[in-house]
Amino acid sequence: MQEYPLAKVFQLLEPGPTVLVTTSSAGRANVMTMTWHMMMEFEPPLLACLLSQGNHSFAALSATRQCVIAIPPASLASTVVDIGNCTGAKVDKFQAFGLTKLPAAKVEAPLIRECFANLECRVVDDALVEKYNLFVLEVVQAWSDPAWPDLASTDPGRSLPKTMHHNGDGTFRLDGEMLNLKKRMVKFPEFA
Amino acid sequence: MQEYPLAKVFQLLEPGPTVLVTTSSAGRANVMTMTWHMMMEFEPPLLACLLSQGNHSFAALSATRQCVIAIPPASLASTVVDIGNCTGAKVDKFQAFGLTKLPAAKVEAPLIRECFANLECRVVDDALVEKYNLFVLEVVQAWSDPAWPDLASTDPGRSLPKTMHHNGDGTFRLDGEMLNLKKRMVKFPEFA
Repeated sequence: MQEYPLAKVFQLLEPGPTVLVTTSSAGRANVMTMTWHMMMEFEPPLLACLLSQGNHSFAALSATRQCVIAIPPASLASTVVDIGNCTGAKVDKFQAFGLTKLPAAKVEAPLIRECFANLECRVVDDALVEKYNLFVLEVVQAWSDPAWPDLASTDPGRSLPKTMHHNGDGTFRLDGEMLNLKKRMVKFPEFA
Repeated sequence: MQEYPLAKVFQLLEPGPTVLVTTSSAGRANVMTMTWHMMMEFEPPLLACLLSQGNHSFAALSATRQCVIAIPPASLASTVVDIGNCTGAKVDKFQAFGLTKLPAAKVEAPLIRECFANLECRVVDDALVEKYNLFVLEVVQAWSDPAWPDLASTDPGRSLPKTMHHNGDGTFRLDGEMLNLKKRMVKFPEFA
């Protein structure tokens, strides 16, 4: 993994991909699948996400206030669904699904080698956790797989990994055609 | 537009499409483009979203506590970008972009005829508005275009409109291949 610019993290999450979330609690790593998340701020990058209170990861994130958000390519789709259909209370998911843990720089939770981007996060606001299970996270360090050198580019011809968008029912729409409307972004000259 | 079941609203927003938001303030309707949103609860459907404080729509939503979230098909992409690149303070966007207003049932903000789904929303929590511009909305009534009769279905072979996922820079990834992994949803027998 190579360093990925924090100012470009929003480009990874704004399209709404299904992601994985790793935690490490009492020396034991776990991973879950997550689809309810959104960007909240460009830089430092803030995001909101929901974890179901019954999940093993909810307890770990609440206790450690740290996690890694990893973005899987569509080729990992079956694994991503299987991760969401068992619990870390009973299964060592990294071992069960053949995922490679890499050490993070600023948090205890591991990066996932098989994901093309990894975002080290800290909980910065838990005001809505009790009521809605909503965590506000700050991305404190970001990484990308050098196999995707264009990931932080804004060149409309860049090569991006295909990601998964969950329809909520076990079906996904995968990324298709890339559409370039940069010339119409007149309010945002940095992108036009 | 025909009634769309509230229990299925998450299927529309969980994939992370770029959406439009309409408001009505002092008798004048406006519309903006929004990409930072997420589901928070299945039923009644709750969602979170961020509106930039400088936006005309921010003032309208804050004052009226009502809006409509409309989901555009990818065929409307140029219009969706243009809507995000001008302000309702200066432009009647419905007129400028040839969008058709339809009356909503429970809010003053209009539905958009050209969008395949319209969600009437009320602000139910503004605890994080001042700090982050984050609104919590409840969908109180949902509508869909009868031209898409499969929209609330969970049949993996259903026909869905192609939506847009914003990369944050004026480029979009459009929906491509549909992937069916329902059989792996063992924790969620209602979908398997």
